[in-house]
Amino acid sequence: MTHSPHLTTRVLLETKRFRVETATCVRADGTTHQREVIRHPGAVTVVPMVDADHVCLIRNYRLAVAQTLLELPAGTLEPGEPPAATAERELVEETGYRAGQLHLLHSFYLSPGILDECMYLYLATDLTAGSAAREPGEEIENHVLDWGEAIRMACDGTIRDAKTIVGLLFCDRMRQ
Amino acid sequence: MTHSPHLTTRVLLETKRFRVETATCVRADGTTHQREVIRHPGAVTVVPMVDADHVCLIRNYRLAVAQTLLELPAGTLEPGEPPAATAERELVEETGYRAGQLHLLHSFYLSPGILDECMYLYLATDLTAGSAAREPGEEIENHVLDWGEAIRMACDGTIRDAKTIVGLLFCDRMRQ
Repeated sequence: MTHSPHLTTRVLLETKRFRVETATCVRADGTTHQREVIRHPGAVTVVPMVDADHVCLIRNYRLAVAQTLLELPAGTLEPGEPPAATAERELVEETGYRAGQLHLLHSFYLSPGILDECMYLYLATDLTAGSAAREPGEEIENHVLDWGEAIRMACDGTIRDAKTIVGLLFCDRMRQ
Repeated sequence: MTHSPHLTTRVLLETKRFRVETATCVRADGTTHQREVIRHPGAVTVVPMVDADHVCLIRNYRLAVAQTLLELPAGTLEPGEPPAATAERELVEETGYRAGQLHLLHSFYLSPGILDECMYLYLATDLTAGSAAREPGEEIENHVLDWGEAIRMACDGTIRDAKTIVGLLFCDRMRQ
C-alpha cells in the first residue's frame, strides 16, 4: 500500500446530522487522491433481549428510503458522549426498555467508501419495561419477536437494514 | 404510522459519487418532517468462493476512514446498469476473478437514517483467475482466506466493514 496519512480537508456542506468534505490524501509517491467524504459523529445499535428467546425490534419510518424498516433500536452519538451512554439512552428513548446490562460486541463501518460513520453494537439484557420518549418526527413502534423468527427475517429479506442484520447474525453465532 | 408518501426534495450538493438533498415529507395529519438525505445510485458486493472452503477478500485503503479495511469486493452501479452486471464487472476489476455463476442473496440499506444506498449481495462461484483492472486511486490487494478464518475475523473485530460482515455471516448460515 502506497498511501500516507497526509490528509487535508475542505468543508463543502454542513447539515444537522452530517458534514460533507473534500478529502485529499498525498501518497508516499507524491501523487494525490481526492474524494468527497461524509463525516458523521458515529452511532450505536442495541440488541435488546426481552428474555432469553425474544428480541425487541422497532418499526421505523425512514425518510431517506421512504419505507418503514424493521430495525434494532439505534441512535447517534451526542458530542463527547461515550457510546455505552448513547446505547443506554437510545434504548430507553426508542423502546422504553432500560438495560440492566450492556455489552459492547462489535464496531463497524457502514459505507466506508463515502461515509465515516462507525456503528457500535451492544447486547442489552436484564431489561425493565417503561415508557419510550421518542423524538418529534420519529415514527417508531416496538415489535417483539421470537429469536428464530428474527433470524429468519434477517435472512429472507424481510429485514433490510445492515446494522440489524449484523446484530442479529452476530448474536446468533454467540448462541450456537 | 402516520406518514404519507408526499415527498418534496431540494438539492443542496452534487458530487461525483452522491447527492445531498433536503427531503420534506407531509404526514397524513398535515405536519411536516424534514431531513437532509444522501442519494446514492446503489452498489453491489460479492462473496467470491475461490473453492468450496476459500473466499477472496480484498485489502482496500478507504480515505473516508483513513484505514485499510479487509472487505468483500464491491462497487457502485453505473447509470442504468443491472446489479448483476455491476457484480460481474466489479469482481473482475477488483480481484481479477471472473464468475461462472452469480446468485443474488440479499439486498439491504447501509445507513437508512441518512443514506439511501442499497447494497445487493451476490455469491460468486465457478471462478476463473485473471488480471485485475483497478481504477486510478484504488489501492487494493487480494487476500484469499480459509472460510473458518474469515468468519472468525468477521466476529473478532478484524473485519470492520458492514457489508462484508453481512455477506460472510449470511453465507455461513447457508453452509450450516
